[in-house]
Amino acid sequence: MGKIKLDEIDHQILDMLIDNTRTPFTDIAKKLLISAGTVHVRVKKMEEAGIIRGSSLTLDYVKLGYSFIAYVGIFLEKTHQTKFVLERLVQIPNVTVAHITTGKFNIFCKIRAKDTTHAKNIIFKIDDIDGISRTETMISLEESINDKKRLMHTIFNEL
Amino acid sequence: MGKIKLDEIDHQILDMLIDNTRTPFTDIAKKLLISAGTVHVRVKKMEEAGIIRGSSLTLDYVKLGYSFIAYVGIFLEKTHQTKFVLERLVQIPNVTVAHITTGKFNIFCKIRAKDTTHAKNIIFKIDDIDGISRTETMISLEESINDKKRLMHTIFNEL
Amino acid sequence: MGKIKLDEIDHQILDMLIDNTRTPFTDIAKKLLISAGTVHVRVKKMEEAGIIRGSSLTLDYVKLGYSFIAYVGIFLEKTHQTKFVLERLVQIPNVTVAHITTGKFNIFCKIRAKDTTHAKNIIFKIDDIDGISRTETMISLEESINDKKRLMHTIFNEL
Amino acid sequence: MGKIKLDEIDHQILDMLIDNTRTPFTDIAKKLLISAGTVHVRVKKMEEAGIIRGSSLTLDYVKLGYSFIAYVGIFLEKTHQTKFVLERLVQIPNVTVAHITTGKFNIFCKIRAKDTTHAKNIIFKIDDIDGISRTETMISLEESINDKKRLMHTIFNEL
Amino acid sequence: MGKIKLDEIDHQILDMLIDNTRTPFTDIAKKLLISAGTVHVRVKKMEEAGIIRGSSLTLDYVKLGYSFIAYVGIFLEKTHQTKFVLERLVQIPNVTVAHITTGKFNIFCKIRAKDTTHAKNIIFKIDDIDGISRTETMISLEESINDKKRLMHTIFNEL
Amino acid sequence: MGKIKLDEIDHQILDMLIDNTRTPFTDIAKKLLISAGTVHVRVKKMEEAGIIRGSSLTLDYVKLGYSFIAYVGIFLEKTHQTKFVLERLVQIPNVTVAHITTGKFNIFCKIRAKDTTHAKNIIFKIDDIDGISRTETMISLEESINDKKRLMHTIFNEL
Amino acid sequence: MGKIKLDEIDHQILDMLIDNTRTPFTDIAKKLLISAGTVHVRVKKMEEAGIIRGSSLTLDYVKLGYSFIAYVGIFLEKTHQTKFVLERLVQIPNVTVAHITTGKFNIFCKIRAKDTTHAKNIIFKIDDIDGISRTETMISLEESINDKKRLMHTIFNEL
Amino acid sequence: MGKIKLDEIDHQILDMLIDNTRTPFTDIAKKLLISAGTVHVRVKKMEEAGIIRGSSLTLDYVKLGYSFIAYVGIFLEKTHQTKFVLERLVQIPNVTVAHITTGKFNIFCKIRAKDTTHAKNIIFKIDDIDGISRTETMISLEESINDKKRLMHTIFNEL
Repeated sequence: MGKIKLDEIDHQILDMLIDNTRTPFTDIAKKLLISAGTVHVRVKKMEEAGIIRGSSLTLDYVKLGYSFIAYVGIFLEKTHQTKFVLERLVQIPNVTVAHITTGKFNIFCKIRAKDTTHAKNIIFKIDDIDGISRTETMISLEESINDKKRLMHTIFNEL
Repeated sequence: MGKIKLDEIDHQILDMLIDNTRTPFTDIAKKLLISAGTVHVRVKKMEEAGIIRGSSLTLDYVKLGYSFIAYVGIFLEKTHQTKFVLERLVQIPNVTVAHITTGKFNIFCKIRAKDTTHAKNIIFKIDDIDGISRTETMISLEESINDKKRLMHTIFNEL
Repeated sequence: MGKIKLDEIDHQILDMLIDNTRTPFTDIAKKLLISAGTVHVRVKKMEEAGIIRGSSLTLDYVKLGYSFIAYVGIFLEKTHQTKFVLERLVQIPNVTVAHITTGKFNIFCKIRAKDTTHAKNIIFKIDDIDGISRTETMISLEESINDKKRLMHTIFNEL
Repeated sequence: MGKIKLDEIDHQILDMLIDNTRTPFTDIAKKLLISAGTVHVRVKKMEEAGIIRGSSLTLDYVKLGYSFIAYVGIFLEKTHQTKFVLERLVQIPNVTVAHITTGKFNIFCKIRAKDTTHAKNIIFKIDDIDGISRTETMISLEESINDKKRLMHTIFNEL
Repeated sequence: MGKIKLDEIDHQILDMLIDNTRTPFTDIAKKLLISAGTVHVRVKKMEEAGIIRGSSLTLDYVKLGYSFIAYVGIFLEKTHQTKFVLERLVQIPNVTVAHITTGKFNIFCKIRAKDTTHAKNIIFKIDDIDGISRTETMISLEESINDKKRLMHTIFNEL
Repeated sequence: MGKIKLDEIDHQILDMLIDNTRTPFTDIAKKLLISAGTVHVRVKKMEEAGIIRGSSLTLDYVKLGYSFIAYVGIFLEKTHQTKFVLERLVQIPNVTVAHITTGKFNIFCKIRAKDTTHAKNIIFKIDDIDGISRTETMISLEESINDKKRLMHTIFNEL
Repeated sequence: MGKIKLDEIDHQILDMLIDNTRTPFTDIAKKLLISAGTVHVRVKKMEEAGIIRGSSLTLDYVKLGYSFIAYVGIFLEKTHQTKFVLERLVQIPNVTVAHITTGKFNIFCKIRAKDTTHAKNIIFKIDDIDGISRTETMISLEESINDKKRLMHTIFNEL
Repeated sequence: MGKIKLDEIDHQILDMLIDNTRTPFTDIAKKLLISAGTVHVRVKKMEEAGIIRGSSLTLDYVKLGYSFIAYVGIFLEKTHQTKFVLERLVQIPNVTVAHITTGKFNIFCKIRAKDTTHAKNIIFKIDDIDGISRTETMISLEESINDKKRLMHTIFNEL
């Protein structure tokens, strides 16, 4: 819980990497009027502190044939099975997000599939995990927002 | 809906970039026994085709003081307000995901906040958008899975 | 409520027409050892009595590009709008079935669409009808049974 | 998933058969200014392609004493019993429609019965199938729309 | 709240009248070895104290053509309309019972109708009362118990 | 299901008995200008036909210390236990009404108790019946209508 | 259930102690123009009668690091386990309130925790108690009122 | 959010006051082998730091005629009315607890009343507050745990 102190330079570096993780360090250095080595050191420091945990591509799932998104709420038979069930869920790559939640569900997860039939097969695979008593599915008709960059900029402006 | 044809080389390039978007093209080229220029051309092609839409940092939100995640289900007064409401939601940076959904909610979104009080203020901001009649919140007690890389690898192995 | 009396011959005629409405009357006549004229008279009688209301083709909707089925539960602002809303629903050809129901919904209907996006547009059209306050959608992952013939045979065996 | 190409003539033939499956091919031929043989060949082609799967009578269930319609939502103990349960449901002729669904139910079906007591017996029969843990019933007070012809005409006009 | 003191004789009189309100006082008198005048005085006293509020026939509604029973849960727009709505409900004779309740409904009532269509009309009449925003109906498939006599005997044995 | 034909005289007799089952037959006879014997014969006929099944006292439960009314919805483990559970319910005299119902409950019943603690004990007794998996209770804050006489008069006016 | 008769002096003593349980008896005596001994006797009497059951500190939980409040609804497998489950709940000090309730939950309790993760662990501990089949959690975003003094003053003014 | 540092002596003082807020400081001093003045100074310090916010009597509500407890979930028309509604709720002394909550309710509160009729009147008063669209009530059949002392001891042992 000990938070790392980030200074103004760190924020500006993060601000630029958020928009494009491939921005060359020399470009960042030029804009901030510091050396590329300094950028390198700062980024390394933030990686070691665990603030930057990596980077990921933003792909167009629709173009790749994966246009079907659903949220699946899971009811467990007993909550002490939570850890076991999560280990099984992680083996289904179509489960991209999973949370332990309050409210009526024990676990709540997000899946991406090709179409209705594919989604059915994934949901059936989830339903067959030992310890899961029932699931409820909510289907996305449109993914209108999926963007963490607005939040990241806000965080760094706030710090 | 016209899908782009990706060949084996494209898949291998994507496979390497998924794990680290900052992998230098020269490293990729060396591994695949092709020229760095070829890597560059291929990536450019996939960007132009819209398959690669960008890249994003994976930050540790807990370390940044944002440990509170909630899902908010939104009931609209009338569905023809959907577009209007989404335009307002996009102005709240803490709303990182929003879907038009089937089932009891009209819109379903995900928010990240610092703590309970911060979450309350964000939820109140959402509740005050014109056209929203009511919201229901489900709180995450643990984000157990948040990983699209397993799916991406599966997609490219399948193609 | 006055039920028409059907005799054994009528039942056998109906039994054959249920399986194939295009069965020539001469074939039916031959099987039942009666004249084709008698078959004609009997069928006409049942049409006039309103027992036979017509015939319909059974098409393969998936092959025609309509593979998406959903059930939509409708909440009205006031029930006296029921008739008005049903008149609007009948103008949306994708609404193939609609019932006034007990339980939480006022009207419950079935829609057929091409895919998720098409379904969204149809649901939005329904949501925009005056007098409808909210809808809830349940999506079919597989149409496992859609067959009235088993029931029809049962009815005629029972009579 | 490979869709059959239907031309203008096919659509017009279907359009006429939708309204009355017993329309003689000679009548269709006359209207379309083609030979009866051509109509025959076209219909046969569409039957072989699986687009036309058959035809069914439209009976007046109220006149036949079957005025009671209900929708029954089924909760399974485990989803891997889905196939088994559907095989049992198909043996109850009063179950005219059954879907595997998203949302709170695993299977959702439609039944036709004579009256309240008859409906109770059918629901009890469903409840007694192994693997079904609970059912919820929604009763139709009026079947306001039950008509696929509007949709069929729309599909052929669209093609 | 001041309860009337009933003695052993009163209880025995009530016990006999519960089973048949038309039992002649002379018969009761004979069994209890008291005078018919005493029975008369005692019954009068209990009527004046308000313990006996009257008597009612137990009719067979099925034989009278009223075989359809439903429970209707009513949601009000505002609870201060409760009294007004109850005054309207009392004008619909098919509403035989109505309670102000805790839980999701504001008012919960029981209706008796001839059949599904009749029930629909009564529910529509209820839905049209000013101040009612929505109703939910639960249909009885069988009235298995409707008997206050067991309770009455218990009360008098307990006193 | 064969309904008994009641004539105008029968209706008038029932109409008078509904308001007071103890009305002497001589009074009825005088009002209708018929003999007391005729009244006797008519009532006997309606009793034998099963239309009049008996009569019951209307007691003031509040004055008798029974002011607490609740509705209890019962979920069964399996519906084939319905009959068995009803046999157990009938042994609890505080259960004055019980229905097999559609919707979320299998059985729905009404109980009368002295106060909250008494109600808890009755509900616990119900919960302990074999085959009952869960119950949900809705408490009456006021019994606003409990009157079948309005309906009875309507029925006889209608006949 | 026999209520103790409290007189005007008793009420005034209670009224002063409600606001500050540590008010010296001499201060109370001075204000009421009675002797400190009388105050002592009166308080003792009310303690012995069980009206005053003790006193408790009002601590600021947020300052003590316990800012997270949740309500947890508990579903039991069978209600006869109620007593057993309550004995287990009492061993979890974070459960500060627990009620046997009507409605959908069997037991409803309130917990205080340090943060989301702490709450998760407490909820898991509850979920693991034998006899509990499922829980639903509702999280407090703000404790706006927690004050019995207004009620106590009202009660004493009313008496 | 700056937490006050409490030492071992502070904890022991609090531990004793929790069990009886009227424990004389001289008794505490004797047990802890410190001077009464020190106890006084420490308690004062904790009061000024806001950790001790006061003390309250624990009364026996059943003996005082207040045996009816209910939880009331409130739905607002718009959440920006939250503050206004809470100001109205605080004027009803029977509302002893109120929370702004996640989940289906906007505000969740606890009320204490004399009996069913009294509870009805309080709920009606709540329902009539402007901005409240609907309430749902859950009634306590038994208050099994109401004790913060176990938690307080745990907190001080933990510190």
